[in-house]
Amino acid sequence: MNHKMVFRTVGKIVLAEAAMLLLPTFVSLLYGENCIWSFLITIAVALVIGGALVLGLRPKDKVIYAKEGFVIVALAWLSLSLIGALPFTISGEIPSYIDAVFETVSGFTTTGASILTDVESMSYGLLFWRSFTHWVGGMGVLVFAMAIIPDFSDRSIHILRAEVPGPTVGKLVPRMKDTAKILYLIYIVMTVTEIILLLCGGMPLFDSVVHSMGTAGTGGFGVKADSIGGYSPYLQWVIGIFMLLFGINFNLYYLLLIRQFKPVFKSGELWAYIGIATAAVILICVNIWPLYEEFSEVLRQSFFQVSSILTTTGYSTTDFNQWPDFSKAILLLLMCIGGCAGSTAGGIKVSRVVMIFKQIGSELQHMLHPRSVKVVHFEGKKVDQQTLHGVGVYLMIYVLCLAAVTLVVSLDPFGLETNLSAAMACFNNIGPGLGIVGPAGSYAAYSDLSKATLTFAMLFGRLEIFPMLLFFSPATWSKKG
Amino acid sequence: MNHKMVFRTVGKIVLAEAAMLLLPTFVSLLYGENCIWSFLITIAVALVIGGALVLGLRPKDKVIYAKEGFVIVALAWLSLSLIGALPFTISGEIPSYIDAVFETVSGFTTTGASILTDVESMSYGLLFWRSFTHWVGGMGVLVFAMAIIPDFSDRSIHILRAEVPGPTVGKLVPRMKDTAKILYLIYIVMTVTEIILLLCGGMPLFDSVVHSMGTAGTGGFGVKADSIGGYSPYLQWVIGIFMLLFGINFNLYYLLLIRQFKPVFKSGELWAYIGIATAAVILICVNIWPLYEEFSEVLRQSFFQVSSILTTTGYSTTDFNQWPDFSKAILLLLMCIGGCAGSTAGGIKVSRVVMIFKQIGSELQHMLHPRSVKVVHFEGKKVDQQTLHGVGVYLMIYVLCLAAVTLVVSLDPFGLETNLSAAMACFNNIGPGLGIVGPAGSYAAYSDLSKATLTFAMLFGRLEIFPMLLFFSPATWSKKG
Repeated sequence: MNHKMVFRTVGKIVLAEAAMLLLPTFVSLLYGENCIWSFLITIAVALVIGGALVLGLRPKDKVIYAKEGFVIVALAWLSLSLIGALPFTISGEIPSYIDAVFETVSGFTTTGASILTDVESMSYGLLFWRSFTHWVGGMGVLVFAMAIIPDFSDRSIHILRAEVPGPTVGKLVPRMKDTAKILYLIYIVMTVTEIILLLCGGMPLFDSVVHSMGTAGTGGFGVKADSIGGYSPYLQWVIGIFMLLFGINFNLYYLLLIRQFKPVFKSGELWAYIGIATAAVILICVNIWPLYEEFSEVLRQSFFQVSSILTTTGYSTTDFNQWPDFSKAILLLLMCIGGCAGSTAGGIKVSRVVMIFKQIGSELQHMLHPRSVKVVHFEGKKVDQQTLHGVGVYLMIYVLCLAAVTLVVSLDPFGLETNLSAAMACFNNIGPGLGIVGPAGSYAAYSDLSKATLTFAMLFGRLEIFPMLLFFSPATWSKKG
Repeated sequence: MNHKMVFRTVGKIVLAEAAMLLLPTFVSLLYGENCIWSFLITIAVALVIGGALVLGLRPKDKVIYAKEGFVIVALAWLSLSLIGALPFTISGEIPSYIDAVFETVSGFTTTGASILTDVESMSYGLLFWRSFTHWVGGMGVLVFAMAIIPDFSDRSIHILRAEVPGPTVGKLVPRMKDTAKILYLIYIVMTVTEIILLLCGGMPLFDSVVHSMGTAGTGGFGVKADSIGGYSPYLQWVIGIFMLLFGINFNLYYLLLIRQFKPVFKSGELWAYIGIATAAVILICVNIWPLYEEFSEVLRQSFFQVSSILTTTGYSTTDFNQWPDFSKAILLLLMCIGGCAGSTAGGIKVSRVVMIFKQIGSELQHMLHPRSVKVVHFEGKKVDQQTLHGVGVYLMIYVLCLAAVTLVVSLDPFGLETNLSAAMACFNNIGPGLGIVGPAGSYAAYSDLSKATLTFAMLFGRLEIFPMLLFFSPATWSKKG
């Protein structure tokens, strides 16, 4: 393990966080809020820690291997969250530091689960910071750092691989740094487009920016107690459609940019994603029809909630906790599927789900014809055994983690519906679940043990388990490696 | 597809069922019950159908391949259930045929889920038949047929493989027929031992026989409304311990018989099974302590319920639906794990769970040291890639089936706790779940659609999915194969 290189890189990320914190500082200055001091103190802390790590460590060997990649990512996300939680506690707006860390991790991991019981009483500066963490966390904090910090090593494919969701990661262009820049450029253009469309619909500027950042990161933090429910149908449609757009693999947008339309329209994952969303919208429409008066409202409610849950954003336009069991069961299923690989969404990812179905099909085929060769094709290519095996192992570890989180959370007496959906909603980075953690509720009632467990669940889920698991595994830190 | 051979074999199984039905006929004769006529009519039906198939079909080619093995097993179980349900409906004790099929499938698959709201009003003949289906279904109806029918093909390893649970199936002795006989011999000796021990504790003969058959098959049908709750602590301990014994791989008993002690005490699956049971008993003891007065009762209640759920039997000595959420979450987890491979229990099976953990470990190791070779050892041998891949695919299809069943069942308005646990309890062949399908409830309130879905879930679960899935797959029946 190249300790110096690991901690130096984490130091750079902490410095990058100091830079990020300038934005909410500016917002609180604009609104003349007292919480500006909490940001300034936190920036000072970040500068001291980050500066000490970067200046104090001068690694001779600059090489990073896969192992270092995982550790850097895990450590960076932990540091960012622990430091990023300070403004909430220093300002006194979230007095408990455990609660503040929960909220910050929920932000960076784009979960959007909240312990706030009265979001509308928060200061603008902190509301902005909360949503800005969504925006940065969505595309990846290390991808962010890679795009803005000059001397990032070009062996950082290992870092990207550990942070970007999905079973495989490809570079768009030969240099990692340029890939990171292209991704962020697409991301910025889409976010700004959404802000403009929301402004056109009469949403105030602050709300537009916050909701666009929450949509882009598929996060879900808002500024109103009823999430998006109070806004006009036009605004709900805009956010609903943009959530779906941010759940698509960003590589496809890049292909569109360089005018390669064919692979986009032939993408198996994209079609599966559209198919799943359409099927879910139709089934829920039929199921909730009796609850609403007009078809346009049935369709809007169904589409918005499906788009929000499938992309693991977590905004809501209605308390879907009041929907019939069948619709709730569909939403729970969508929670686990999640968005496309290479997007800002959480969950198992559509591409893995597609590969799971294809593997089952190939296995059945093999059972009927034992001498046939098992081959799985996806996105026009033969999938290698290593990737297929990886999908299987990922599902195993996914199920085990979900079971473990549910078990610990069940120490709180809120019933299976609340506890299981809380575990699912945090682990898949959605935000609201069912029962008391539903769209109309919050995570405030959970014990500190459950909150800490759910905090780790969010980090495990966002980083697709392995970086965090390796970080906590003694073998990673042993001299031998 | 060798259709003639398939249907002729199924014909033999149906004739074997006619023989099985003689036992409950004798019981109703003994108690002078009217339901004897329903058995006699059913025997006649079985003789006609089975006789026609066996005498009418004279296959030239007697070879059976893997495909035929799956289809025979699926078709045999369906036929046995459809015919075995007749006595319930003909006698009028379960007027709805769908309910009767549910009850019979629940019997053969050793699930023990019941639609009866008043079990104590049933006739002795039908109560005996219900529990006898557990006993036969536990070891496998085709293994049963193999043991008693003279001219069973010796290529029937394909049948055994499709019916006996677990990731791999070994022959104990070179001839399949002898393997089947040895398995049934061990089974009978253990069942009779339990009957004697229950009689010693003062349980009436009829109850002893029924409960021993229910324990042996890890089924769970009883004769009392409160299951085993009304019997003495001694009787509860006997049943609790025997449930655990019947959840162990029967190959280990054979090894004990031929005095090969070393592989038994080195069995990784056995130790994992004991470890899981012990951990669950301790955790639940701590959690339910405040509910009971004496430690002996806490331990007995915890041990009995853990043993019952882990082995997927489904007897209960208390309404565990009233336990705290944490204990209920542990029980749900145990439901999915199930017993050992090669036992009469359902669930994913301990050996698969162990292999899942080992695969995750080997994957983490590989991530740290990308050039290391991934090897998984189990029961002293290197596990081949085919088996590991099979475990992964099994988990994929298991999760999908469970999700699909839960989704359909959620059309009934009983809440997630009831609906999810009903799907789990049927798919893993346990019997009682939580909520209204808890130990004090029944499946009577479900719609016919849900009952039919749960009926198939029981069959899919007992046969480990693939035989049923292939049976319903068009590719199996296409000319090409």
